[in-house]
Amino acid sequence: MVECFNKIAQDADCRAVVISGAGKMFTAGIDLVDMASDLLQPQGDDVARISWYLRSLIARYQETFSVIEKCPKPVIAAIHGGCIGGGVDLITACDIRYCAQDAFFQVKEVDVGLAADVGTLQRLPRVIGNQSLVNELAFTARKMMADEALSSGLVSRIFPDKEVMLDAAFNLAAEISSKSPVAVQGTKINLLYSRDHSVAEGLNYMASWNMSMLQTQDIVKSVQAAMEKKELKGVTFSKL
Amino acid sequence: MVECFNKIAQDADCRAVVISGAGKMFTAGIDLVDMASDLLQPQGDDVARISWYLRSLIARYQETFSVIEKCPKPVIAAIHGGCIGGGVDLITACDIRYCAQDAFFQVKEVDVGLAADVGTLQRLPRVIGNQSLVNELAFTARKMMADEALSSGLVSRIFPDKEVMLDAAFNLAAEISSKSPVAVQGTKINLLYSRDHSVAEGLNYMASWNMSMLQTQDIVKSVQAAMEKKELKGVTFSKL
Amino acid sequence: MVECFNKIAQDADCRAVVISGAGKMFTAGIDLVDMASDLLQPQGDDVARISWYLRSLIARYQETFSVIEKCPKPVIAAIHGGCIGGGVDLITACDIRYCAQDAFFQVKEVDVGLAADVGTLQRLPRVIGNQSLVNELAFTARKMMADEALSSGLVSRIFPDKEVMLDAAFNLAAEISSKSPVAVQGTKINLLYSRDHSVAEGLNYMASWNMSMLQTQDIVKSVQAAMEKKELKGVTFSKL
Amino acid sequence: MVECFNKIAQDADCRAVVISGAGKMFTAGIDLVDMASDLLQPQGDDVARISWYLRSLIARYQETFSVIEKCPKPVIAAIHGGCIGGGVDLITACDIRYCAQDAFFQVKEVDVGLAADVGTLQRLPRVIGNQSLVNELAFTARKMMADEALSSGLVSRIFPDKEVMLDAAFNLAAEISSKSPVAVQGTKINLLYSRDHSVAEGLNYMASWNMSMLQTQDIVKSVQAAMEKKELKGVTFSKL
Amino acid sequence: MVECFNKIAQDADCRAVVISGAGKMFTAGIDLVDMASDLLQPQGDDVARISWYLRSLIARYQETFSVIEKCPKPVIAAIHGGCIGGGVDLITACDIRYCAQDAFFQVKEVDVGLAADVGTLQRLPRVIGNQSLVNELAFTARKMMADEALSSGLVSRIFPDKEVMLDAAFNLAAEISSKSPVAVQGTKINLLYSRDHSVAEGLNYMASWNMSMLQTQDIVKSVQAAMEKKELKGVTFSKL
Amino acid sequence: MVECFNKIAQDADCRAVVISGAGKMFTAGIDLVDMASDLLQPQGDDVARISWYLRSLIARYQETFSVIEKCPKPVIAAIHGGCIGGGVDLITACDIRYCAQDAFFQVKEVDVGLAADVGTLQRLPRVIGNQSLVNELAFTARKMMADEALSSGLVSRIFPDKEVMLDAAFNLAAEISSKSPVAVQGTKINLLYSRDHSVAEGLNYMASWNMSMLQTQDIVKSVQAAMEKKELKGVTFSKL
Repeated sequence: MVECFNKIAQDADCRAVVISGAGKMFTAGIDLVDMASDLLQPQGDDVARISWYLRSLIARYQETFSVIEKCPKPVIAAIHGGCIGGGVDLITACDIRYCAQDAFFQVKEVDVGLAADVGTLQRLPRVIGNQSLVNELAFTARKMMADEALSSGLVSRIFPDKEVMLDAAFNLAAEISSKSPVAVQGTKINLLYSRDHSVAEGLNYMASWNMSMLQTQDIVKSVQAAMEKKELKGVTFSKL
Repeated sequence: MVECFNKIAQDADCRAVVISGAGKMFTAGIDLVDMASDLLQPQGDDVARISWYLRSLIARYQETFSVIEKCPKPVIAAIHGGCIGGGVDLITACDIRYCAQDAFFQVKEVDVGLAADVGTLQRLPRVIGNQSLVNELAFTARKMMADEALSSGLVSRIFPDKEVMLDAAFNLAAEISSKSPVAVQGTKINLLYSRDHSVAEGLNYMASWNMSMLQTQDIVKSVQAAMEKKELKGVTFSKL
Repeated sequence: MVECFNKIAQDADCRAVVISGAGKMFTAGIDLVDMASDLLQPQGDDVARISWYLRSLIARYQETFSVIEKCPKPVIAAIHGGCIGGGVDLITACDIRYCAQDAFFQVKEVDVGLAADVGTLQRLPRVIGNQSLVNELAFTARKMMADEALSSGLVSRIFPDKEVMLDAAFNLAAEISSKSPVAVQGTKINLLYSRDHSVAEGLNYMASWNMSMLQTQDIVKSVQAAMEKKELKGVTFSKL
Repeated sequence: MVECFNKIAQDADCRAVVISGAGKMFTAGIDLVDMASDLLQPQGDDVARISWYLRSLIARYQETFSVIEKCPKPVIAAIHGGCIGGGVDLITACDIRYCAQDAFFQVKEVDVGLAADVGTLQRLPRVIGNQSLVNELAFTARKMMADEALSSGLVSRIFPDKEVMLDAAFNLAAEISSKSPVAVQGTKINLLYSRDHSVAEGLNYMASWNMSMLQTQDIVKSVQAAMEKKELKGVTFSKL
Repeated sequence: MVECFNKIAQDADCRAVVISGAGKMFTAGIDLVDMASDLLQPQGDDVARISWYLRSLIARYQETFSVIEKCPKPVIAAIHGGCIGGGVDLITACDIRYCAQDAFFQVKEVDVGLAADVGTLQRLPRVIGNQSLVNELAFTARKMMADEALSSGLVSRIFPDKEVMLDAAFNLAAEISSKSPVAVQGTKINLLYSRDHSVAEGLNYMASWNMSMLQTQDIVKSVQAAMEKKELKGVTFSKL
Repeated sequence: MVECFNKIAQDADCRAVVISGAGKMFTAGIDLVDMASDLLQPQGDDVARISWYLRSLIARYQETFSVIEKCPKPVIAAIHGGCIGGGVDLITACDIRYCAQDAFFQVKEVDVGLAADVGTLQRLPRVIGNQSLVNELAFTARKMMADEALSSGLVSRIFPDKEVMLDAAFNLAAEISSKSPVAVQGTKINLLYSRDHSVAEGLNYMASWNMSMLQTQDIVKSVQAAMEKKELKGVTFSKL
């Protein structure tokens, strides 16, 4: 993930990303056998040294998903089937979530004896506006089906099946890619900055950001298109 | 806006505000021709000096809407027809949002080549509880119709038309104005403080606020009315 | 409340808590006569000294509900009938909220002449994802019925009556109690930490937390149960 | 310490505190034998449960010194001889530090295999203005003699011996006690608030604090004394 | 002060400011008679309404000094004789402090019955690196003479008399004015931002600031002068 | 630097680091010709795209020095001769600073037309306790000689020449390396955490850190040595 999203971040030809699952499910989460070998076979017997090692391991896993936010290009998660454990960590680090009717979501970590530590507890409460539900999901590991995911705001749209969903996700990605990348990527960076700061802090940062970005030719091109009532799809914005 | 809301803040006769649009729409947003003249005709050719100028310009525009929050009196936005670009910046700085059935909302900035910089990216994610939707609106500039605005929580009520909505908004304003201004305005100040601070910080500030405000005669009057089952509308609270 | 929840926090036999109301209502809020005697009969006539006294009084009242959050065990509020004034302060400090169909909610403080100062203004906006509604409730003190409480996310489920609700609440508590207490209580502590910090801060704290907690035997037991497809209810986790 | 300072905080007759050491030294720090029995004899063998227990133990120890800051009355540390380990944690939580010429200071924890965890690492860097020195002291556990403590700002005055120092400390305490307690204790509360917040936050809190405290009779009395060029020692301020 | 510094902030011909006192002293602080009329003659008898009025008054006074920080041009305080009460609030909001040998400093507020509320408690602890001393000054209102002001870091240089000091202050102002205003004013803005944020936050803001400011012609001019070993005084930087 | 310090962070055989300069000076700072080629030859002519490129460049440069803080091993800077521009950025990111008598320090950036953007403005004010001096240095780029560096706290010791200084620095490094690495590195991590957080936040983090670290065998070994009055140099602590 880290390598992949670092490449995407650098690749000026890429303006939006769709993440979907290749198999029967979006993801079944961490492989318990893998996990067992990492966590359950401590090296040495000094608790402090095992803790030191585990902390660096957790930090590395966290980075796997935080890299999605650090990439300034919008990332759309398109979910079908099960989205379990690490899958919820992953999709809550994405910007937009679509799902198929067969999707279900599970904050599974409590069932394997741990507090979720790679992002769900930090991001899910900011993604949806019902904290009673967030807590219930995190304490019980129960499945949340697609309809509840929509009504609670975890996803913004449901589609009848994976194919239709992917079409919609790619259309959305194409739509976003037709806009000025200065505008789109500056929007992502500032939305995430604002999430973690007060409104006053966010406005201050925004002003220091846009004092240069407003000098872009993209505004001239976009305004011209708007005045001539042309679609942005016909306008060419330089790479960023 | 700044002059107007500073006056309102000072005017002890005013206890609540309704903002509505006078024309066919609530607002079509910034005038592209105006904007062109401000942004697109830089003065001089030193990037740093143009940036310096633009930053002060953005800060001034931001203040246009932040002044709504600095005014301690509740501000109700009553929206009909289009509420586009700067209109969304404006209404997210208001305290309560009502709309007519014909209202629609558009975070338009990305379409003119810029990241929204006068409040939408900072406030919209705190106003509604569906971040996937916030991101989608900000990246695509698509219209959101009244029903979606209600279900997502951008507005708290929809009305069949502008007239009915305005009646309801003025009734709400009247209702709020009948309460103790010490209670109402202290509530607004502390709700906004809490939005930007941790719960512990918010509680600490609240305690230092109310250690004086609880000494008001308004509590005596309100409690008396409550005990006598009288409406607050019959009680006179001094100006604040 | 403080004594009670401190005991619960220490009691290793208790793994989840249900709070419900014993009478006709969940709670009618503060007793105006009590309040009158505390607030309205200042001791001495120096404003600073009365303020000093009131601040310590408010802080003490705030602690009454903050203690629910400081207790690391999940607390489920099961609400029937009226939940007024201090009742809203109380339930917003709980982790999960269920209600009966006859429940209604009222942020009543503005009606007695004060800004709510023991938690509602700090916690309610984080609990539900519709700030226009939060403001309306706080400025008007109007009743919110069960259905609106559900659609706005204040509660996560409605039940036909108190009895059915209590069954569900106790089932939920039992379900949570069957999981590893290291996982459940670490989840509560980190969810609350994350609420009040940026995502990056939350992740950092989480890593330092789990570097020890991942060394628990509870993971071995939970993973084993998962691999053998056994229910966690059959697994014994040591007291915490 | 907790009981003692809670009493002091409540005791309206006490307006300033002097802490000094009774024996040959201010304090030799934690007793290694005591510590061994607490830390080195874990209960049970589950790392998570031992961690849980240790965390509550550390938190309890931290409170031992934090209670000095929570007490709004100025606390003067008067140090003679050795001030080692926990002694540095203690004196950095005090407001003013005086020492005798024979005093020395040692951040000793690294020498017993742990990072200091009850306050020194948090408070010492805020108490003195030479971070290179702070780090050196914390990494090497070397002794700092009285003269270096003065030049680095750890103490504000040195005295030839304990007796002279105590006289000076009590004189200072008497001097502080002669001022308005509303002024003095409000000053301590706001100095500590400001330490942990931005200047803008500190000013905002200060304004909400003083909006009531400026209504005190103490100002009238103090101003009158000042105009009549009388000493404050002759003025009686009510208890707080 | 507010008008004056707003003008200075706008005046592109001004690049540095020296503040000095015109009379026998730098300033004797607030006039007790003035203060008495503002504070001691409350309007009306409702504590909450008097508090409301006092809060706006304090905020206005605070702004008097905060405006010095908001002005991006370096401000040098040159102090002779007494600098009492509000004088300390003023000079701690300045960027550089010089004093004459006859200067003395007094945090006087506690002597008139109040906690200093227009900046000293917030800024003095950040200006000097000896918190024991800060506390002692604030609790006792004792005079600090020039030599202690230098050794504690309140001032950075002492001069034999006012005249020599003013020469030095104006030379310093001239020196600063010879540098690129983009560099100097960006430095002030970022130093103040950094004071109130974590290092990581400060670096992030700095990067967003300099991404435009590094495009200035001033760098080309400055580097050329440096390479040609010319003094900056001979280089002309455009107004900012 | 980044590669080097990442290696050091991973290398369990390294427990402390000394940074010194190889040539006549510690460092003359950035090479103006290099800088010119990076900054002054913009690619393309769109201001936003140049800004985007510069921001990533600044962030990369910042990381060069931030990596010193991210490395948990104590880093001692040993400075002789000039330490100019980037040199100050570097040494303020180190933990302890020693210098030779011939050392001088210069915050040079303002002389080349820019606000220092890779750490000096963020870290210097936290390293020394005299903000008037920090500002003067940053606004004027004047040289500060070794004696002023000592009295202001920028360095903690001065040595007659480079050789003596290096001996002392290596002795210090050896001394630090003889202690428990769990204690030393946990101390660095928590000192830096505390610098950027409130005292309460720092204490909370510290407790969650030490709940595992107190379970180390290093404490047993250190306490044993202390009780037997043995030097730590004779004790073997496992690698970390």
